[in-house]
Amino acid sequence: MNKIKLFCPATVANICCGFDVLGLCLSTIGDEMIIHKSSKKGIRITKITGADLPFETEKNVAGVAALALLKDLDIDFGFDIEIHKKIKAGSGIGSSAASAAGAVFGINELLGQPYSRKELVEFAMKGEALASGSEHADNVAPALLGGFTLVRGYNPLDVIRIESPAELYVTVVHPQIELKTSEMRAVLKPEITLKSAITQWGNLGGLIAGLYTEDYELIKRSLHDEIVEPLRSPFIPNFDLVKNSALKNNALGCGISGSGPSIFTLNKGIKIANNIAVIMKDIYSKTNIPFEIHISKIDSQGIRIIN
Amino acid sequence: MNKIKLFCPATVANICCGFDVLGLCLSTIGDEMIIHKSSKKGIRITKITGADLPFETEKNVAGVAALALLKDLDIDFGFDIEIHKKIKAGSGIGSSAASAAGAVFGINELLGQPYSRKELVEFAMKGEALASGSEHADNVAPALLGGFTLVRGYNPLDVIRIESPAELYVTVVHPQIELKTSEMRAVLKPEITLKSAITQWGNLGGLIAGLYTEDYELIKRSLHDEIVEPLRSPFIPNFDLVKNSALKNNALGCGISGSGPSIFTLNKGIKIANNIAVIMKDIYSKTNIPFEIHISKIDSQGIRIIN
Repeated sequence: MNKIKLFCPATVANICCGFDVLGLCLSTIGDEMIIHKSSKKGIRITKITGADLPFETEKNVAGVAALALLKDLDIDFGFDIEIHKKIKAGSGIGSSAASAAGAVFGINELLGQPYSRKELVEFAMKGEALASGSEHADNVAPALLGGFTLVRGYNPLDVIRIESPAELYVTVVHPQIELKTSEMRAVLKPEITLKSAITQWGNLGGLIAGLYTEDYELIKRSLHDEIVEPLRSPFIPNFDLVKNSALKNNALGCGISGSGPSIFTLNKGIKIANNIAVIMKDIYSKTNIPFEIHISKIDSQGIRIIN
Repeated sequence: MNKIKLFCPATVANICCGFDVLGLCLSTIGDEMIIHKSSKKGIRITKITGADLPFETEKNVAGVAALALLKDLDIDFGFDIEIHKKIKAGSGIGSSAASAAGAVFGINELLGQPYSRKELVEFAMKGEALASGSEHADNVAPALLGGFTLVRGYNPLDVIRIESPAELYVTVVHPQIELKTSEMRAVLKPEITLKSAITQWGNLGGLIAGLYTEDYELIKRSLHDEIVEPLRSPFIPNFDLVKNSALKNNALGCGISGSGPSIFTLNKGIKIANNIAVIMKDIYSKTNIPFEIHISKIDSQGIRIIN
């Protein structure tokens, strides 16, 4: 195999009580990447469509992730990477993670899978770091592994994959405003109350238990975040309106995807997910903010080979 | 049935990363209680052995819990309670919780089970509040339900029971020093760093995942507490020595039981649990502190009827 074409899914990180540790994989929105084996050593970004991204390997998220993967391998050939972006940059649904994860996944396949999907997470994180300024796994892990992923810790990296309950659907609205990740980080407080932390880890425990037992009511009761959401949501127009309307209309929970501006809901069943999409559309249609809406089952596979 | 005899198990609360939300049930140490139906209305504590506790119903943990249960019921008879304490007060393994849980469980049985075990937790919490100053469920829940229990939240009370992996054993040492609960609470800081909170909820998520998947290595990697343990452990003589020795000898994890002074380890298999007990014995034998050691499987049933 000298060429591979990939679907590199968007992802939702944080998931209310799972700030900085939880992520999930979408199946209906993702980039396409085509990777060719080349007799020329090194990594080249040969084509980019759908976004204005740098072609220099060291400045491109996919390039940096690919270089990290190749660093430990002694090979006398290289790879050319085409990136066809469908996930908008700055949307908060893992655009850079998709590129980073796609590059390492595709090259690993062309090399005959020297690494497992889980082992690829660390290489993809190097690409993520270029985009976000810090190595984190909460988007690259679900992109590579599918389902839900829990990043237990980083020293060493410890990622746990959790199968999604079968009827869980995600609805995401991306109001296309610019939120700087650095600003969204600056708004966080370095200290929180022990009381709120206990509430948060009680909910996270409940959410994990709900995922394993497919207990949708428990998942619903657990989807809260009283630490980060109150600080970030004021930057997202109509967040409260979307959230309140979604919960009134039977969404299990609603929160900020990543550091925003996308807003996601978890829903039991496609019917509710579709209805929430209608509600989101109604709300943003009344503004002058362009927006996109995605409805998706939680993808159990992660990045996949297409064609 | 006019009389019931009960085994009311000791419990371990907090469990490292599960501060204030997790608990587990022991099977080899617990109080005995005998409850008699009486034609006389109300609750009377008629006998106490093994501890110097008040006989006045309103000042006795079991009495207060029993009164809370009866409050909503219209019955023209009452109950006499005998308490035979085996769990030492102030040990940190749920002595008051055992009494509170036993009283409500026994009376509920004699009444023909108007409440489920889960519903009894809230009544037992009223008894706990007398002993600890605040209503909390992290000992009464595992005493009533067995296994591991996660208190997701209190508004309303939401307790999730989690089955213990089959090979999990607990070793507990109770160095018999006096630690005031109020002092152990005062030592906590009302604010913690967001970073340490994220570490903690990553570990809690890992622990819950490890329990559901019976992944002992994941349980081991998750059993850490960098928030509460560093503040409280200096009050427990030889804590660090016990912990380091236990981890070196293959305990999965080690921490403070409740607010101390008992120290527990979780272990895979009875052999390691027994070996850790020997190590604990060696350490405290060299001090002038009296101590007790308990080795136990995690009890999957909770309070049980005996004889």
